[in-house]
Amino acid sequence: MKQINLKTRPVGLPSKDTFEIKDVKLKGMQSGDVHIQLVYLSVDPYLRGRMNDTKSYIPPFKLNEPIVSTGIGKVVKSKSDDFLEGDFVIGSVPWQEEAILPGETLQKIDPAVAKLPAYLGIIGMTGLTAYFGLLDIGQPEPDETVVVSAGAGAVGSAVGQIAQIKGARVVGIAGSEEKIHYMVNELGFDVGINYKTKEFSHNLAKACPNGIDVYFENVGGKVSDAVWPLLNKFARIPVCGTISSYNKTAEEDMGPRVQSYLIKSSAKMQGFTVGDYADQFAEGKKQLVQWLEEGKLIHKETLVHGFDQTIPAFLSLFDGKNIGKIVVDVRGK
Amino acid sequence: MKQINLKTRPVGLPSKDTFEIKDVKLKGMQSGDVHIQLVYLSVDPYLRGRMNDTKSYIPPFKLNEPIVSTGIGKVVKSKSDDFLEGDFVIGSVPWQEEAILPGETLQKIDPAVAKLPAYLGIIGMTGLTAYFGLLDIGQPEPDETVVVSAGAGAVGSAVGQIAQIKGARVVGIAGSEEKIHYMVNELGFDVGINYKTKEFSHNLAKACPNGIDVYFENVGGKVSDAVWPLLNKFARIPVCGTISSYNKTAEEDMGPRVQSYLIKSSAKMQGFTVGDYADQFAEGKKQLVQWLEEGKLIHKETLVHGFDQTIPAFLSLFDGKNIGKIVVDVRGK
Repeated sequence: MKQINLKTRPVGLPSKDTFEIKDVKLKGMQSGDVHIQLVYLSVDPYLRGRMNDTKSYIPPFKLNEPIVSTGIGKVVKSKSDDFLEGDFVIGSVPWQEEAILPGETLQKIDPAVAKLPAYLGIIGMTGLTAYFGLLDIGQPEPDETVVVSAGAGAVGSAVGQIAQIKGARVVGIAGSEEKIHYMVNELGFDVGINYKTKEFSHNLAKACPNGIDVYFENVGGKVSDAVWPLLNKFARIPVCGTISSYNKTAEEDMGPRVQSYLIKSSAKMQGFTVGDYADQFAEGKKQLVQWLEEGKLIHKETLVHGFDQTIPAFLSLFDGKNIGKIVVDVRGK
Repeated sequence: MKQINLKTRPVGLPSKDTFEIKDVKLKGMQSGDVHIQLVYLSVDPYLRGRMNDTKSYIPPFKLNEPIVSTGIGKVVKSKSDDFLEGDFVIGSVPWQEEAILPGETLQKIDPAVAKLPAYLGIIGMTGLTAYFGLLDIGQPEPDETVVVSAGAGAVGSAVGQIAQIKGARVVGIAGSEEKIHYMVNELGFDVGINYKTKEFSHNLAKACPNGIDVYFENVGGKVSDAVWPLLNKFARIPVCGTISSYNKTAEEDMGPRVQSYLIKSSAKMQGFTVGDYADQFAEGKKQLVQWLEEGKLIHKETLVHGFDQTIPAFLSLFDGKNIGKIVVDVRGK
């Protein structure tokens, strides 16, 4: 059975050589354990942070141990009273084809409510990240201008749609014409702006004639530097991710300091991780499922097929080409 | 009668040549007006921002018109029902020896409650800035670590003392041994750290063995860059001022981008100006007066004597030598 371990701590962009694929055998089950076959794996930008040996909101991955992310498995054998053979379960899982995990770390999910990959996307951590970051910190009001960076990405596409459900005007930022088209024509954002053009700052200002009330931060770097001068009085900035900096050292991620912009606008900038809202997950998921059933939320999970594709799928998160959520279908085609 | 006008918009550090001293005559009084002799003038770092021609929370000063700041006057003649000759009043006043102002822009103050300069300091805008920024945004809890930059300054010295009243451990940052001595031995801060030493980052980390829960931002620049890696989970950062950048262009005020630090700690950074709390001034002032009467707040107003000293007093705000609040005693010795 294959397992993907962290072989070296990457400096800059991770590569194939960051990982090692090993053949391992499962250890025996204990009472309460569940043996699962991995079905879907979520690959997420935040995993890059866990590859560094630095203090953060979650401990770093250990060398020569498997990467862990959210995944969906099918129960092969159960020594837990909570699960039966054939159940689909979700939880933090090691990157390996099968796993034995304590039943209390898993939750049963229902394929009748939504297609399984959606549990890793729009009604999973991705959707909840968008939901709590936008609604608890961003608090968009009707007719306010909400700007979201990486607007065609997994979290960003949900943020923009939820902002529109709340009546806000949504400006999405992304890095290709294909993504702009997706944001405007499929997701229905009011404006899409390509940050890779020379006129980006100018276009952003033009797209926000009334200033910016909420900026949902997914990327950091120069994109965000262009946002600060446009902040309205009492603007809110949920800080979810800074993908532009994940492969940079602190020395490489320099820009205009933000404090004076915050003072001028009495703006609030707040970092968060979805785990901060763990005690409200059930409520958030219920609302997301309802919007999904009402047809108010479009979601796109891009499936890559085969456990072997896990590393390429993860690396692709940093090449800026993906649209929506990337999910590995571990069993292949 | 002398008046101090803005002659040119300064680039970088303002100088004598930024201003023009003119001899002017007062215009006639209208019904409701009050004629005052200026007694005390407040000089504050934020006035530097109003000398630039850029959008901010208050409009810029106009060229060839007087600088305006908070001041205290004695009523010489009143055509307002609210004031009598001899009353002391506070309000936004032009930098000139006498002024005629609409009565509704002034408030009567009582020299029996506190010495007049305190109305420009600890129980005035300075104290209220500390009070609302720290308590509304910072929300220090008992035994938490509160770090305040410019801790010997007008706002910072009040912030540290209010944090101690709330039971927090207070670490003050300042730029001279005299200020460190003042913070620790006169104000009673737990630790004082000199940011001008090579070991500053190291000393700050050592002074905050349990991390930083609240950072009250008065200075920006490299001092604050050293704070970000020490933020605790759910840290709060009231952003009051960035005096290190007031005389810099945006291109000159570059540093490590803060977003990734905010994510790691789920920290909140919020800009504010005291005007955001205008509807709570009465409550804040009442509490500050009470603490003052109970001996819980020490305050130090440094008086400079003579209207001629207004410009040097303002310029001195940027040389890092002042302790406490600087007030011009307009009438001289």
